[in-house]
Amino acid sequence: MSVTIFYIMSIIVSILAFLFAAWLYGWVRKQPSTNKRIIEVGELIRNGAATFLNKEYRVLARFAGAAAILIFIFLPSPVWTGNISKNITMAIAYIAGTVFSAVAGKIGMSIATIANTKAAEAAMKGIKPSFMTGFRGGAVMGMAVVGSSLLGVTAILLATNNTTALLGFSFGASSLALFAKAGGGIFTKTADISADLVGKVELGIPEDDPRNPAVIADNVGDNVGDVAGMGADLFDSHVASMSAALVIAVALDRVSRGTVNASMVLCYAALGLLSSIIGVSMARIGKNGDPTKALNNSTYVTTGIYAVLTLLATIAFKFEWRIWGACIAGLLTGVIIGIASDYFTNDLRKPVQYVARASKSGPAFTILSGISYALLSVLPSMIGIAFASLIAYKLCDPIGDGYAMFGISMSAVGMLSIVGMVISNDAYGPIVDNARGLAEMGNLGEDVLKVTDELDSAGNTVKAITKGFAIAAAGLTVIALLGAFISEVNTAALELGVEGLKGFDIMNPLVFFGMLVGAAIPLVFSSMLMLGVDRNAQRMVQEIHRQFDEITGLKEGKEGVKPEYDKCIEIATSGAIKELIPAGLMAIGFTLIVGFVGGVQAIGGFLAGNIVSGLLFALFMSNAGGLWDNSKKYVEAGNEGGKGSDAHKAAVVGDTVGDPFKDTAGPSINTQITVVSLISSLFSVLFLTFSIF
Amino acid sequence: MSVTIFYIMSIIVSILAFLFAAWLYGWVRKQPSTNKRIIEVGELIRNGAATFLNKEYRVLARFAGAAAILIFIFLPSPVWTGNISKNITMAIAYIAGTVFSAVAGKIGMSIATIANTKAAEAAMKGIKPSFMTGFRGGAVMGMAVVGSSLLGVTAILLATNNTTALLGFSFGASSLALFAKAGGGIFTKTADISADLVGKVELGIPEDDPRNPAVIADNVGDNVGDVAGMGADLFDSHVASMSAALVIAVALDRVSRGTVNASMVLCYAALGLLSSIIGVSMARIGKNGDPTKALNNSTYVTTGIYAVLTLLATIAFKFEWRIWGACIAGLLTGVIIGIASDYFTNDLRKPVQYVARASKSGPAFTILSGISYALLSVLPSMIGIAFASLIAYKLCDPIGDGYAMFGISMSAVGMLSIVGMVISNDAYGPIVDNARGLAEMGNLGEDVLKVTDELDSAGNTVKAITKGFAIAAAGLTVIALLGAFISEVNTAALELGVEGLKGFDIMNPLVFFGMLVGAAIPLVFSSMLMLGVDRNAQRMVQEIHRQFDEITGLKEGKEGVKPEYDKCIEIATSGAIKELIPAGLMAIGFTLIVGFVGGVQAIGGFLAGNIVSGLLFALFMSNAGGLWDNSKKYVEAGNEGGKGSDAHKAAVVGDTVGDPFKDTAGPSINTQITVVSLISSLFSVLFLTFSIF
Repeated sequence: MSVTIFYIMSIIVSILAFLFAAWLYGWVRKQPSTNKRIIEVGELIRNGAATFLNKEYRVLARFAGAAAILIFIFLPSPVWTGNISKNITMAIAYIAGTVFSAVAGKIGMSIATIANTKAAEAAMKGIKPSFMTGFRGGAVMGMAVVGSSLLGVTAILLATNNTTALLGFSFGASSLALFAKAGGGIFTKTADISADLVGKVELGIPEDDPRNPAVIADNVGDNVGDVAGMGADLFDSHVASMSAALVIAVALDRVSRGTVNASMVLCYAALGLLSSIIGVSMARIGKNGDPTKALNNSTYVTTGIYAVLTLLATIAFKFEWRIWGACIAGLLTGVIIGIASDYFTNDLRKPVQYVARASKSGPAFTILSGISYALLSVLPSMIGIAFASLIAYKLCDPIGDGYAMFGISMSAVGMLSIVGMVISNDAYGPIVDNARGLAEMGNLGEDVLKVTDELDSAGNTVKAITKGFAIAAAGLTVIALLGAFISEVNTAALELGVEGLKGFDIMNPLVFFGMLVGAAIPLVFSSMLMLGVDRNAQRMVQEIHRQFDEITGLKEGKEGVKPEYDKCIEIATSGAIKELIPAGLMAIGFTLIVGFVGGVQAIGGFLAGNIVSGLLFALFMSNAGGLWDNSKKYVEAGNEGGKGSDAHKAAVVGDTVGDPFKDTAGPSINTQITVVSLISSLFSVLFLTFSIF
Repeated sequence: MSVTIFYIMSIIVSILAFLFAAWLYGWVRKQPSTNKRIIEVGELIRNGAATFLNKEYRVLARFAGAAAILIFIFLPSPVWTGNISKNITMAIAYIAGTVFSAVAGKIGMSIATIANTKAAEAAMKGIKPSFMTGFRGGAVMGMAVVGSSLLGVTAILLATNNTTALLGFSFGASSLALFAKAGGGIFTKTADISADLVGKVELGIPEDDPRNPAVIADNVGDNVGDVAGMGADLFDSHVASMSAALVIAVALDRVSRGTVNASMVLCYAALGLLSSIIGVSMARIGKNGDPTKALNNSTYVTTGIYAVLTLLATIAFKFEWRIWGACIAGLLTGVIIGIASDYFTNDLRKPVQYVARASKSGPAFTILSGISYALLSVLPSMIGIAFASLIAYKLCDPIGDGYAMFGISMSAVGMLSIVGMVISNDAYGPIVDNARGLAEMGNLGEDVLKVTDELDSAGNTVKAITKGFAIAAAGLTVIALLGAFISEVNTAALELGVEGLKGFDIMNPLVFFGMLVGAAIPLVFSSMLMLGVDRNAQRMVQEIHRQFDEITGLKEGKEGVKPEYDKCIEIATSGAIKELIPAGLMAIGFTLIVGFVGGVQAIGGFLAGNIVSGLLFALFMSNAGGLWDNSKKYVEAGNEGGKGSDAHKAAVVGDTVGDPFKDTAGPSINTQITVVSLISSLFSVLFLTFSIF
């Protein structure tokens, strides 16, 4: 069985995904829009989002251009040491990674800012049509992201036949994701916090009130943070998992003079996308059905289909069943971790209710109990990831030398296989969140708001699960990237005639040195992003105050008086871009410093420390944010005193703290880990050649 | 030069420390007490503290007894496999460790609850006498703790000539510290939070108001948490650092058939205590001097004396200068880390002022900005520890095989050398804090309160520094314990005829498995302690409410009406004891599970993950707590609106969240790391023999 058939298979499935996305796109566009106000506001949001994305991409294009030049000069080895063609390939692969990621983000944003208005209108007809609009809008993003990533990886490998180029492509995707996620995260929370602070707290006007100058920025934020940012993040993870697996697979194939391992990676990845296509197309909801159930069911259906398809493929193509086992172990672990995260953020469970009750004693207790449960919540995920990698190892080690690490990388591929479905569910969230805002601003009435509220709440619940999933997947991926790093170092060491790496001994002080520094980076990174949000929100609050002071009749809601929405969008945009760069460069800078000080051993430790601490903080922050968000909603639903009570005020404080946790810092850590891992692999030759110790 | 002389030297210095402590004790007792009210309240505090300690020790005695039996049966190897005398030695060493620790804690508590009343009275005469009383009271604790630990370690080694027994002694100290620190931490924060919540927030009565039923419990809490708990913690770290160094030194000496390395450890440790004795006896303050400066100066003086004394000893006894270098590198790093922690918690610096300003926007911003800075604050310490271990390694590696790890362990010994001084400064804090409360309850007037406030504030500032120091020292110690673990495993492996350990490769999935699980433990441990405080505080708030409801005239402060202070003490006591056991057992249980599942490789990873994540969270939590505490004080000093403003209310929320961070969870993590490291070493034979993978 030649590998060519799997290249063809991947390309066909990618194209299928694009065609399906186009059909969904058309379906969503065909949905009716009649309400003038909604169309008008929808236009504002769409333009605001486009403005941000264009501005961000312009800045990132300059950054990527500079990075591409540096890559051309230095990677994989300095251009003056010969083989210029390798460096050109790397630079092109890198640029391709950024472009693919940017395009997927752009497509997702474009559909999300159409689907939001359509879903708002559809809500007038009930849950079913509104849900389908939101879900299919999200699915466009899911299909576009996974289609691009599969196509990109396949194309790069086919064109270059060089796995280092694949890491370059992956690095392009990651570096874009790092900034897109951080920038979007800062934008969205700046707008959200400022709007709430002045609107709800100071003036006591409702959420999404059109008088609030920050209200459009807030809705734009949902799109740029949760849609574009999250899409870039999962694009990045998906590419990284495939790249890591392919780096290891090709190295193994070289030894066995075959192509079976690379074939398997491509085959399993393609089947993952195929399962997502089937899962999305089968998603249905009853007339008065439960949207949460509908979303979760599609996830389970996709998981089942994937397990069956890969099993059949394994039998048909005589793949090693042990590797299939590792892949499925990863997938199941992902699902279990999702369920465990759900426990800590579901308002039917103890943690959310406990925090709501504690809020009656004041905000300090909301924070303390929330933090306590969030700290606890990391345990099942950490154990899950630990066991997934251990099982993969034990299953695949007997196959032969090097297969244990390949098993782990395939376990990551398995966990990320259904990412098309995950993104669909995830992008559904901000679409219906926006729809809720639009329904409010379009005065569609209480009944419609009830529908959109229910859809929105389902989005939040599912988000907690998909976030846990995404973090776990990133965890396994970076373990695999560690394997890829060693593989790269050893290839380079062979060429240079120096000693290669067997592993990283914790007792080697260089490794330990790297580990301690690497572990601190996610904390510093989170800190910089959150302080960025804080500074940016202060700027925006000033602007909101200025508008309420200077625009006469705005506070009173006088007919025809409108706030200057674009000023707030402008502040959020420029602030986000200003704040995201230092955090990203800090993470990259420390990697290079540790690498050039301590060499590859220190980098091994650095990555391990970074992964472990990154996982802890990403899980802690995401779960804390979800827990506080849902505690607030639980109180608002009439528990522990309901809206306006002291418990509610305290719960709002918790939610405000949780917002940048779950939407800015937490999910950005994922990308930070991946970027750092990829840089390490790419610089492996330089670290081997030039390092102080 | 025979090792005997250094045994004698250690014993002489220990005895000197006890004599000095006795003299200080006498001096403090001789200070005048005249105010009846202060004597009366002082009595209540003393009795409350004694009640708690006796009850806690009774429970811990049962626990220690059970542990000693298990140790006798299983350690170092199951008793039925022969050599019963080794097991008896282990059990006795373990019990000795618990007893020494308990006695040191008891002495410290006893003097602290005398010195508090004396310091309160002395405050009527001005800063100088009050400072000297507080400081010398603290110094009794410092001398008792370090004297016992040096004497204990020397005696055990002399009596058994067996370094594994030393680990047993250290484990005894650690297991007691784990519970004492956690129990004391829960007690103190239960009382503190409940007293504030009902007193300050609900009823608006001042801190330390004698009407508050929890006020005595609150003052007792300062003693049981900050004096007894902290003493046990640093006793444990000091013993562990010496034990780890001795385990490695004796192994090296065995190879070189000498005793120089063990001699050096004893000599340096004894000189550390000697330096502290000199430093304490030289501590002075001018008539209107600055107490913070006086405390810090004594630390710097001690540091200088130690460097000189060890240098002279190194020359005189012809010790290896490289190891001296490692030792001094550790010491200096400790000082630098202390200064760096100070930056994040000092109200003259940006972080505290920023958080105070952010508080004007509400409590959510107090929390967010505080957490952001606290996350950032871990970086200098992590880099400091990383460099200290790297420098020690680079310095000592050229001496010969195994000396790199010995250098790291000596770097920990160096960092902990001035621990006698550190404890003196640290125990000074709760004494003057208590004195402040007593001055308030004794109606000594505003002028005296101003004096005690100034002394108290110095205690808080110095505490931030000593805490950073203690955590860093624990960090280096546990790295050394990892070295001791390998040394133990290899000795056992040799006897069993199985393969020993070279190190722990991060790429070995068993190691990685252990690392992920180990990293989650400090979070779970913190979570359990904080939830324990929360539950316990709820019980206590109920009791306070009951008293205010049922005791007529209490709220109004009617003459002769007194609250039932002992009921609150009883609740804090029994609650603390109830809540501390599960957290401690959880940490121990996970170590055993990982060890018996994954064997010594998994344990290596487990320890590394535990150390890294433990350091991160201990630093994060301690610094966050200090930062919020001082932000509140900064606002109370009249900034950003001053007392009663919105900023003040928000800052109080921050302080309440920070309290269990800095006084319950943060510092307990230290001990958790050490306990887990020691258990691993002690169980090494069993993990080698029985493990699933």
